[in-house]
Amino acid sequence: MTNLEQIRPFFEPSSVAVIGASPIITKVGYVVLHNLLMNKEKWIFDGEIYPVNPKYAEVLGVKCYPSLRSIGKSVETIIIAIPAQIVPSVMEEAAEIGVKAAIIISSGFSEVGNVKLEEEVKRIGLRSGIRIIGPNCLGVYDPYSGMDTLFLPEVKRLSSGREVVATPRPFPGSIVLISQSGAFGAAALDYMAGHGIGVRCFISLGNRCDVAEHELLLYFSEDKKTKVNLLYIEGIGNGRGFFEASKKVSTLKPIVALKAGKTSAGARAAASHTGALSGVDQIYGAVFKQSGIVRAMNLEELFDMGRALNLQPPAHGKKVAILTNGGGPGIVAADTCEESGLSVVKLSDDIINRFEDLKKKGELLPIMANSNPVDLTALATSDMYVKALRILLDDKDIDGVLVITLPQTPSILDDVIEKVADVSMEQKKPVVACVMGGTEMAEEFRVRFEKSGIPSYSMPERAARAIYSLMEYGMYLGKLH
Amino acid sequence: MTNLEQIRPFFEPSSVAVIGASPIITKVGYVVLHNLLMNKEKWIFDGEIYPVNPKYAEVLGVKCYPSLRSIGKSVETIIIAIPAQIVPSVMEEAAEIGVKAAIIISSGFSEVGNVKLEEEVKRIGLRSGIRIIGPNCLGVYDPYSGMDTLFLPEVKRLSSGREVVATPRPFPGSIVLISQSGAFGAAALDYMAGHGIGVRCFISLGNRCDVAEHELLLYFSEDKKTKVNLLYIEGIGNGRGFFEASKKVSTLKPIVALKAGKTSAGARAAASHTGALSGVDQIYGAVFKQSGIVRAMNLEELFDMGRALNLQPPAHGKKVAILTNGGGPGIVAADTCEESGLSVVKLSDDIINRFEDLKKKGELLPIMANSNPVDLTALATSDMYVKALRILLDDKDIDGVLVITLPQTPSILDDVIEKVADVSMEQKKPVVACVMGGTEMAEEFRVRFEKSGIPSYSMPERAARAIYSLMEYGMYLGKLH
Repeated sequence: MTNLEQIRPFFEPSSVAVIGASPIITKVGYVVLHNLLMNKEKWIFDGEIYPVNPKYAEVLGVKCYPSLRSIGKSVETIIIAIPAQIVPSVMEEAAEIGVKAAIIISSGFSEVGNVKLEEEVKRIGLRSGIRIIGPNCLGVYDPYSGMDTLFLPEVKRLSSGREVVATPRPFPGSIVLISQSGAFGAAALDYMAGHGIGVRCFISLGNRCDVAEHELLLYFSEDKKTKVNLLYIEGIGNGRGFFEASKKVSTLKPIVALKAGKTSAGARAAASHTGALSGVDQIYGAVFKQSGIVRAMNLEELFDMGRALNLQPPAHGKKVAILTNGGGPGIVAADTCEESGLSVVKLSDDIINRFEDLKKKGELLPIMANSNPVDLTALATSDMYVKALRILLDDKDIDGVLVITLPQTPSILDDVIEKVADVSMEQKKPVVACVMGGTEMAEEFRVRFEKSGIPSYSMPERAARAIYSLMEYGMYLGKLH
Repeated sequence: MTNLEQIRPFFEPSSVAVIGASPIITKVGYVVLHNLLMNKEKWIFDGEIYPVNPKYAEVLGVKCYPSLRSIGKSVETIIIAIPAQIVPSVMEEAAEIGVKAAIIISSGFSEVGNVKLEEEVKRIGLRSGIRIIGPNCLGVYDPYSGMDTLFLPEVKRLSSGREVVATPRPFPGSIVLISQSGAFGAAALDYMAGHGIGVRCFISLGNRCDVAEHELLLYFSEDKKTKVNLLYIEGIGNGRGFFEASKKVSTLKPIVALKAGKTSAGARAAASHTGALSGVDQIYGAVFKQSGIVRAMNLEELFDMGRALNLQPPAHGKKVAILTNGGGPGIVAADTCEESGLSVVKLSDDIINRFEDLKKKGELLPIMANSNPVDLTALATSDMYVKALRILLDDKDIDGVLVITLPQTPSILDDVIEKVADVSMEQKKPVVACVMGGTEMAEEFRVRFEKSGIPSYSMPERAARAIYSLMEYGMYLGKLH
């Protein structure tokens, strides 16, 4: 049995037992059982579900078993939500009945100094072959299989009595998110749901006593639904395994990583959080570089890059053109591109000649300067965008284009969105969009760009970092060939 | 007459003439006249309004004059929206009838190489004493006086026929925004409106042939409604004037500046945009530092810092505590604080003793580590936040607190918002909040924090940079005494 076959039961179990199942709505054992039963009712989850808790004969209308053993059937995966001290005894029982995978949500292990207890659990897993996610984690959310161990409620009640969405589940998509931190993971799911970013699978690893990032990366590299991997890392346990796996996976699918604990204060905090040794930041930088991982510098960027790599092809080089109808935002984008190591190239003679031709024909404005950023000016129309973008993408010295459309000027109409998207398909070069503004029109532009396959951002710096990720990843792929 | 008395007519004119007034809805002269007439009808604007255009006898129901001279009454301020070539003749006429201020919206001057034309306009201004904003600008938006020369429509029609808000006007507030770039300015107003940030006044300077940032800073430093100044700068013309003015103003009111054109690509773009020499970036850094200007590194940060300085007091030092219910986001915040030069201090013995006391009483959790970030864990309640925050703010070694409340955990309730706000009032130390997430609950938390006087951010890095601005500005003030 290869490792990857060991990983499947976490996501597509034929049967699960919820250890600590409870009828009390505030308990983890209630929320997890409720999630699974609901998904079963909706025909999303199709495994058997066994509540386990000696206190109850029935939970949520389902027969509840006093112990794992008493189920009397084979159980593939267990979800553990009971006090830390009694986890080893449950694991022993699981070993006896041939359980394959355990998601240990319970906290109270190495993160609070109970290192021996965690070692004991780990040993049982190693001995019996039970693979473990956790402890001290949120577990797994897979919208395709309906496996959902997140114990955070989807809805919360405000003091005013009003119910509001609290931890929504994002819709099915093609981005895998692997997070050491549960809190970050929960906030990340909320962010993805709120911003319409679909998720292939979410995994919160917690103390990571067994299953770590590398095995998950390998597992999803063979998964057809996965397009991009996002990692939130505080520290790596198995450095060699991580390096080898990410080198292999990143030739197939991009990996973006956010490494927390960069500074001494952050590293101290990471140590007391998940017991992770965050190590020297430069080492991580070097490992990421060598294994083709694109590094995100902050949380927002992790998703910004994820969206870019999900929608657009990687670039063959780092020469970027910026096309805009506003000078200021173009300058800011140029700054960020150069600061990221991209090259905001001077326009070739060929491009300038073609621009001049169109100026003569009245199809581009005579006041438009032949420089990069290409500023179409506040009088730009959708057709000028189409013509200029085609010329830029045609040029062999340009590897990708950052398109800024400020929707506030009178002359720009919303048909620019689909027109830009159409032209972007003519070449296999990445195009990203920036639409600044906080109200209706800007929001409409951003959503429709995204639906047309062009990732869009509210700030030029964010768009610049997004195209950087496509160029950085593309350059890595290029070096391999 | 001092300079500041010369500036008032731009914002509170007793009478304005709109040169190039037009009944055609797509013309600048229509939008500007329409803005002013609407504001007059709503009793916001109380100056006289004279449309000027030889083509029409009446525009928008108001008598239209063939020339400035033909008005036959004194005109304090003119707004010019006619082709560049005929601007000098209008300026000559304005000089004859004693106009005090001109906002030249027209483009086609030095930004496209017509340097001589701009020089000519400038000379007329100098000779006659007419002060000039522009050319090639959006002009002014003052929600208190109703002066609104923005020619961008508030509403636009999509190709589907649906009307959407395009360039909304933010509500009256206490933030002054001075922008060289008009496009950036328009997008910024849209951002402020969409994010509920009030504006005291917005000024787009364009080519800046006369009035520059320094006189505006001095003008608003004496204005009771102004609390914070935000600058978007591509380059400074009058370096000495800018330095002297900002040194003076920043002792009274904070200034945050975003300098675009940091890299060579950005600088090239700035030169062709508003003809600005963006100079060596390090020089700007030094000038900002010496004159007490807080430097924002990107557009979002400009507003993030503006909101922080608008709502919270500056700090007396740079020692920051981070209070959180999620480990990961705490680590990320600690990283950004340290990278910004703040000190994420170790907790004093006094704080640790007080924490331990509360742990014994069961008012804080025993598993909570006595380290900074202070991680109350996912089980944190509102009362734990109150108690820990009070202890941190009481400590003489802590100058400000960054509070992270992840609303996704079951134990945290929304009353934490007002409770944290109440405790933050007990000491004159800044408190900022981070609430991660993209859906209802997170949004509700952020809005209510802001309404309670605590600036709130969706990402820990942004909150960290916000408290940095309060510490950086406070340290500058401290050095002066």
